[in-house]
Amino acid sequence: MSGAKSRLSNILNDKEREIFAFSMLEDVIRSLKSSSLDEIVILATSPDGITEITAPYGVEYLVDERDLNSAINSILMDEVDPVMIVMSDLPLLTGSVIDEMLGFEEEVVIAPGMGGGTNILLLRSPSRFRVDYYGNSLQDHISIARERGLSLRIYYSFLAAVDMDEESDLIELLIHGDGKASSYLRSLGFYVNGASGRVRLKREV
Amino acid sequence: MSGAKSRLSNILNDKEREIFAFSMLEDVIRSLKSSSLDEIVILATSPDGITEITAPYGVEYLVDERDLNSAINSILMDEVDPVMIVMSDLPLLTGSVIDEMLGFEEEVVIAPGMGGGTNILLLRSPSRFRVDYYGNSLQDHISIARERGLSLRIYYSFLAAVDMDEESDLIELLIHGDGKASSYLRSLGFYVNGASGRVRLKREV
Repeated sequence: MSGAKSRLSNILNDKEREIFAFSMLEDVIRSLKSSSLDEIVILATSPDGITEITAPYGVEYLVDERDLNSAINSILMDEVDPVMIVMSDLPLLTGSVIDEMLGFEEEVVIAPGMGGGTNILLLRSPSRFRVDYYGNSLQDHISIARERGLSLRIYYSFLAAVDMDEESDLIELLIHGDGKASSYLRSLGFYVNGASGRVRLKREV
Repeated sequence: MSGAKSRLSNILNDKEREIFAFSMLEDVIRSLKSSSLDEIVILATSPDGITEITAPYGVEYLVDERDLNSAINSILMDEVDPVMIVMSDLPLLTGSVIDEMLGFEEEVVIAPGMGGGTNILLLRSPSRFRVDYYGNSLQDHISIARERGLSLRIYYSFLAAVDMDEESDLIELLIHGDGKASSYLRSLGFYVNGASGRVRLKREV
């Protein structure tokens, strides 16, 4: 996970960002394992460090060095069973959120991320869809579903929406998190502080 | 609503912030009216402009010039029926979110806001509680419930969490909103734009 989470580089160094990214992945794996999903595969751009995280949970992984869209679309193309695509930077995610999404009947169910992203995407007919991540991917995915005549639901979930891209996201994790990623941030000295207005992110020196 | 939303003063002038605040109040009233709540009372620090917003919806209002905590606590003290306290800057709120909260059985149900706030607070026994808004009010309200031996649920809702305090919040409103407040922002020339990473807020000149 080198180069992970570059927008956090002003508050976390390279090594910290890498450990943070792996901690989030582990939190996500735990939430998926506690859901009713019956097969979990981690998609990674490099095998470095992945086995150590996935093996204890009995989870498989695939390595694909291409960009996210190419890697995912090549899988979707031949897939006949429903697929749920879950981003790995969702440390607040719970199995209940996943199960609630699985309960909907639409062909495409999207859990938006903050700022117009797509954090979870459930596809009942994967081969009829193609993903287009980056930027305002929520709008892009809505358009793709409509173009292809697929029924669509936007599933609004706070715990699925809060991805870890920016400093303010770490505040949400520190307030609400109780997994590996929030513990790691606390171990680095981060805490929230604020007497008026919204709280601010602080780090002990 | 003079002085409303001062943290948006770098992108909206005084008059725009006032109209924006009233637009959000109207969106909130519409969501409450579409829920199963049987009585709605708007609490305002001044009567200016309130009748024009509330009258068309047949909603009452109370004027109390004191700070929010004093005003609310003086109401809670004598209240025997359940009370739900809903902030007025939640333009994405829906009646379904309110009804889902009303379905829980805990004595205190809190829908957190971004950054540690309390956006909706449902109190089954209002006289046993006191509110403490501002700052990290979520943590304060959790502590108050625990001190008083009241059962508690944190209800995570994206649509209830996104309050309009900062520039990035307007982005969520522009992406997901379809009421008065989002229409007003669009009428001022605001739009979202972004090819990579999260989208950014833009305004036509």
